[in-house]
Amino acid sequence: MKTCWDVVAGGVTAPRGFRAAAVRCGIRQVEVDDLGLLVSETQGTAAAVFTANRVAAAPVRWSRASIARGKVRAAVVNSGNANACTGARGLRAVEATAAKAAELLGLKPHSFLIASTGIIGRYLPVEKLLEGLPRAVQALDGSLEAGERFAHAIMTTDTELKEAALRCELGGGAAVTLGGCTKGAGMIAPGMATTLTFLTTDAAIGRPLLQRMLRRAIERTYNRISIDEHMSTNDTALCLASGLADAPLVREGTRAAGRFEAALTELCRILALKIVADGEGATRLVTIEVVRAPSERAAVAAARAIADSPLCKCALHSGDPNWGRFVSAAGYACSRLDEAKSRLFIGGKLAYAAGAPGKATEAELAAAMAGREVTLRLDLGLGKAAATVWTCDLSKEYVAINADYHT
Amino acid sequence: MKTCWDVVAGGVTAPRGFRAAAVRCGIRQVEVDDLGLLVSETQGTAAAVFTANRVAAAPVRWSRASIARGKVRAAVVNSGNANACTGARGLRAVEATAAKAAELLGLKPHSFLIASTGIIGRYLPVEKLLEGLPRAVQALDGSLEAGERFAHAIMTTDTELKEAALRCELGGGAAVTLGGCTKGAGMIAPGMATTLTFLTTDAAIGRPLLQRMLRRAIERTYNRISIDEHMSTNDTALCLASGLADAPLVREGTRAAGRFEAALTELCRILALKIVADGEGATRLVTIEVVRAPSERAAVAAARAIADSPLCKCALHSGDPNWGRFVSAAGYACSRLDEAKSRLFIGGKLAYAAGAPGKATEAELAAAMAGREVTLRLDLGLGKAAATVWTCDLSKEYVAINADYHT
Repeated sequence: MKTCWDVVAGGVTAPRGFRAAAVRCGIRQVEVDDLGLLVSETQGTAAAVFTANRVAAAPVRWSRASIARGKVRAAVVNSGNANACTGARGLRAVEATAAKAAELLGLKPHSFLIASTGIIGRYLPVEKLLEGLPRAVQALDGSLEAGERFAHAIMTTDTELKEAALRCELGGGAAVTLGGCTKGAGMIAPGMATTLTFLTTDAAIGRPLLQRMLRRAIERTYNRISIDEHMSTNDTALCLASGLADAPLVREGTRAAGRFEAALTELCRILALKIVADGEGATRLVTIEVVRAPSERAAVAAARAIADSPLCKCALHSGDPNWGRFVSAAGYACSRLDEAKSRLFIGGKLAYAAGAPGKATEAELAAAMAGREVTLRLDLGLGKAAATVWTCDLSKEYVAINADYHT
Repeated sequence: MKTCWDVVAGGVTAPRGFRAAAVRCGIRQVEVDDLGLLVSETQGTAAAVFTANRVAAAPVRWSRASIARGKVRAAVVNSGNANACTGARGLRAVEATAAKAAELLGLKPHSFLIASTGIIGRYLPVEKLLEGLPRAVQALDGSLEAGERFAHAIMTTDTELKEAALRCELGGGAAVTLGGCTKGAGMIAPGMATTLTFLTTDAAIGRPLLQRMLRRAIERTYNRISIDEHMSTNDTALCLASGLADAPLVREGTRAAGRFEAALTELCRILALKIVADGEGATRLVTIEVVRAPSERAAVAAARAIADSPLCKCALHSGDPNWGRFVSAAGYACSRLDEAKSRLFIGGKLAYAAGAPGKATEAELAAAMAGREVTLRLDLGLGKAAATVWTCDLSKEYVAINADYHT
């Protein structure tokens, strides 16, 4: 399919009908905005996916209930504290946040998705958040700059802002815009969902269809990245649709729906790769393609084993073409692997074939691993399924960040 | 059961009936012994377990066949090259090694288990190994020192020698000795088997019984350690029994069999913990106990998730009581986890209970993580099963070792 989208400026406020704000309320000790607010001007529709972790943060539990009620049109998010493993007191903090936000904006408490990110196991200083909310409401604005400030407020160990927007031609002259921002640099191995991600669109689209599209888009993008194989307790991806574009309703099975889903998936892919590229201590973005696998599940398992192995990540860090580490990781992840049929390419160079070293020289392989982006391609020769997983390298800086990070 | 064993001096040559040797044949570039030979004076019995990796090294494929034939009584092992991912040429190198060793010692080629450890994907310089074999045969000796030299020859990134021996009272005045040595400091997450481990005993015991005991002992010791979650292509554990102790045959179901298995398991535990304690870059030995789990499998999964998470390992490195990382790792590994019933103890101090912070202060938890050995205990409150997994911390030194290690 010819791409139906173009990258445009901005993030969550790029589509029509959204206002955003960010303020500093003092949850983080550094002097940065740590409270964000995102509101749709219309009731519109909302879809979300959440962490599969059995230890789910208080805001995740609240937000699951909000999404189930079907009336979410705004989000309150804080950084600096995950409000996870905080028991009944954590839930009361979320309830107080939603009640206050509802009062200030004339909405219902369950109109709000609440999200938090930061340290686990510390009680959220909710009074700071409640103090900041009126200022955030005052600051609400529909400009691209407001969207950027919102994206800043959800950052923790991120070193770069992560936002993107796409304009999507639906056909027949109709077009919609999709925008989004995301955060994350560590504790990244999403399952079912992701780190914190906020997506917006001015498309008009029904809730069940948007939910299915969001789940599929996340499955092939966010759920295929890993920085450190550790799934967060707070993973949340929200998509709000305002319906304010001058475009007809996106209906299931139409060409417009196909185009919209392609753009939504591309937006998720762009944002997810920004996370991997900004991985804690990372110096390289690594794309791992597994092809001719017996099943998509097997392809994902093999790619993920390579992505998650610290030995592979160390070789990727130093640019050392020690490809035995990649092959052996696939070997313990695959229930089926035939050495005689398997081939590994690094940047297009054949490292391994028929159970033995391939024809590429060590110098060629080293050159293929020397850049900021590295691609590994494992051909299992067993079937027709394929999958791509993205990861980064493991550096001493990752250890420094995570041995020191506490509050 | 009262312990029936005592630690004694030595390793593989501590039991009666074994000779060992080590020589330098030049496979490793550093000037150390890199070829080891271990021989039982009698045919006796042999049992072994091997890696579950689908990419199995040439020596593993040879040795599986040798063990299946039931006549193994000696082992040839080299360090510096894994002879994995080396195709037909790798297998020919193993065949040549076994043929030469058989000729020199007047045995059959399949009397030998062959094992290799080192870099994957490089052809083994077999001519060096064949040149070294006659010197190794000349050097064969039954002394404890010979056993120690053998243990040295199998080391790669290990910084400490790993050998141990136990004397086991079988009852009725009969006693046997068990000895062993092992290697490993990286690429350690054994599944079905282990890194390289050589065990000997002068007990008289049938092959099927010894095989079952070895498999159970490995399952609860070697298969419960992890340094970096990367299962090797060369994992091999061999147990040779000479039958030369002045003790009756160990028969299944007897008290003597129970005692022998307890001693064998303890020997494996001692050796496995030496690996974790010497983990690449490790500064702490971490014991993770999961209790009151719904099943042993669930307990192992939860403990392993904590052991394998780089975030948990970084917190363990810095001694930071950031216990949310431990709880969240269990949360993504467990299919069942009830926050209200779960409790986490660090060194006996309650860090987390009923879904919220426990009563221990941060200072108490930090003190419990400050030592060379740290114990985490997760009580799931769901059942009666339990499991223990051992791991180490993740340091910048691990990255330095593995980003630089190539040949």
